[in-house]
Parts: sequence; structure tokens; C-alpha cells
Amino acid sequence: MSPRSPDPHRKEHIRRKAAQLFARNGYHGTGVQQLSEAVGLGRGALYHHIGSKEALVEEIVMPRIWEMIAIGETLQAEDLPPHEKVRRLSRAQMRAIAEHLPEWTVFQRDAATLTGPVRKRIFAARDRFERVWAAIIDEGVEQGVFRSLDPIAIKGILGMHNYGYLWIRRRGRLTPDEIADVFCDLLLEGLLSDAS
Amino acid sequence: MSPRSPDPHRKEHIRRKAAQLFARNGYHGTGVQQLSEAVGLGRGALYHHIGSKEALVEEIVMPRIWEMIAIGETLQAEDLPPHEKVRRLSRAQMRAIAEHLPEWTVFQRDAATLTGPVRKRIFAARDRFERVWAAIIDEGVEQGVFRSLDPIAIKGILGMHNYGYLWIRRRGRLTPDEIADVFCDLLLEGLLSDAS
Repeated sequence: MSPRSPDPHRKEHIRRKAAQLFARNGYHGTGVQQLSEAVGLGRGALYHHIGSKEALVEEIVMPRIWEMIAIGETLQAEDLPPHEKVRRLSRAQMRAIAEHLPEWTVFQRDAATLTGPVRKRIFAARDRFERVWAAIIDEGVEQGVFRSLDPIAIKGILGMHNYGYLWIRRRGRLTPDEIADVFCDLLLEGLLSDAS
Repeated sequence: MSPRSPDPHRKEHIRRKAAQLFARNGYHGTGVQQLSEAVGLGRGALYHHIGSKEALVEEIVMPRIWEMIAIGETLQAEDLPPHEKVRRLSRAQMRAIAEHLPEWTVFQRDAATLTGPVRKRIFAARDRFERVWAAIIDEGVEQGVFRSLDPIAIKGILGMHNYGYLWIRRRGRLTPDEIADVFCDLLLEGLLSDAS
């Protein structure tokens, strides 16, 4: 491998270490010096691999959003009842958050404090993923199985899931699938019991 | 007023300016120099008023959490049906987020990146507020009007509301009360239509 094409394993290592540091101390709270030490590279070599701290955030966050877009858009096109699509999307999202907690933390917490083109690209991808949720809910409404709600409900449903980065644990009491099932029971059936 | 007792208006001004700066650039992305310039005080005078940057976060966040605890615990003790308590708490929370957006941003986003006693005190207050939501849901379950859900549902309900700091606008399409009503329709009745 030529010295001009960066080793992909090295890059992945930098990405993971950086995600962990950013998640713990905040993006703005993590200095390039700290990053250098964590990955065992000098500043020069580090910049050779990452370009800039902001570019690093994009590399940390984008694979996670695109993973959800791919899962979501595939699911959207499948021949399944809308409530089943809601369940599968919910499970996929809670699994993704649990499996890539530092990356989701950077995405949910730090991306909004960026400016310029990186922020723009991250938010455009995020919007595309949000449209999957909206499309699945809309499909249910069109089929008459979901009640019609104001589109702001999508923000609530996303918040219910996204907020998981703050409290989900890799070996918690419930698995990500079990958490998603609780959320979906609540979202689909509502709090009110049949008796009420 | 003696020079040793800081002017409360001055302090409130510092608090508000700091909340705006932290919300925009992140707590760790805001330097003391920037704070000094924004409030028009030298570093020495600034430290006289605030003690430390971390102490400032506590002063920004705590009044907001205590406001919600006061509203929530009062509501909890009232003689109202549980679904009405859910609606009122939901509205109060969306109003609080919209009215104090920079403060809620610092609370939701930056508090988790702190360490030590300030973090501990903020999280203890947050837990107390979360228990209000849990108690109101439990009351409904005990009365047989709410179905019984795993306690993790509370995290979902809180996420639905808290996440609002990322997208709520002071003069948005819907008022905070209207947003809360959409969320409560979803939470109480569920997505599934009566026809399904």
C-alpha cells in the first residue's frame, strides 16, 4: 500500500477512538492533541488521515445515518403491514444506537453545534431518514389503519428513539429489541386501557 | 448594595448571555474570553460573579429543572384524572422548552458532558422530575385507566418531549400547547385507528 492511500484499518481505528473521545468530552471539548495521543499519531500524521476535526465528525456520523436510511428505505418498499414496519424500524434504530453509542452521541448531540457544509450534509441525511418514518406512518394513514396525526408527531416518535443515546446501555435490563417493543406498544396502542 | 453581594440583575444578564453562547457553540466550545466579551466584563469581574464555567451551567440549568419539578409535583397532588395530568404536564414541558430554549439546550445536551458534583446535582434534579412523569403514569395504571407498560416507556415519553430543544421554534407553525396535544393524542390513543 502506497503511503499516499491511507490504511483503512488505521482510519477506522482513528474514527472509533475519536467517537469515544467526542462522546465523553464533547466535540468542542476534545483537542487535537488529545486525539493524537489517543490514536498514537503525531498531529501531522493525524491530519494526513482525517483532514480536519470537522471532517472527522462527518466520517463518524454519516455511516450511521446511511445505515439507517438503507434499512429504512428497504423496509419502506417491503410488502408488510404498516404496524409491522413501525416495529421493525423501531427495533433497527434502537439496535443501531446501542451498537454504535459513541457515534450516535456525536450525531445527536454535537452535529447541531457544527456550521457550514458538514452540518448541511449531516442534516440533509438526517432529514432523509426522518422521511422514512414519515412515509411509513403516512402509508398506515392512507390504508386507514393509523389515525391521522399532525406531522409534528414524527418529531415526537423520533425523539422517543433518538433520546436513547442518553440512557441505553449495551448490557442493560432490556435488549434494544425489547425496548423498541415497549415503545411500539405505547405508540401503536396508546396509554389508555380498553377498560377506560 | 455592597460590592461583595453581586447585583442579581447583572447575574441574570450573565446567565442568559452564557446560555445563548453555550447553546450556539456548545459548553466546551465557549471560552471564558468569549463570555467576558459577550457580557462586557473582564475575566476577574466575570469570575467574581460566576465562580466557574461549570457553576454557571448549574445556574443556567437548575432553575429550569426546578420549575418543572414544582409544576409537576403540584400537578401530581391535584385531584384530576391521570390523562388530564399527562396533558397538563406535557403542555407545561413544551412551553418551558420553547420559553427557555438556550437553557434547555444546555441542560439536554451539555450537562451529560460535565463531571463531578455539578453533574451529580443536575442529574439528581432531573431524576426527581422524571419521577413525576412515572408517578402520574403509575397512578393511571393503578386506577385501571392506563395499560401497564415497562418503566422504560417513561424514557420514551421524556425523549418525545425533551428532544424538542432541537426543533421547537418560538414562533413555529404550532404553539407549544398544540404540539403537546398532538403528542398526548398519540401517547394516550395510539397510532392504530378504531377501524383497524
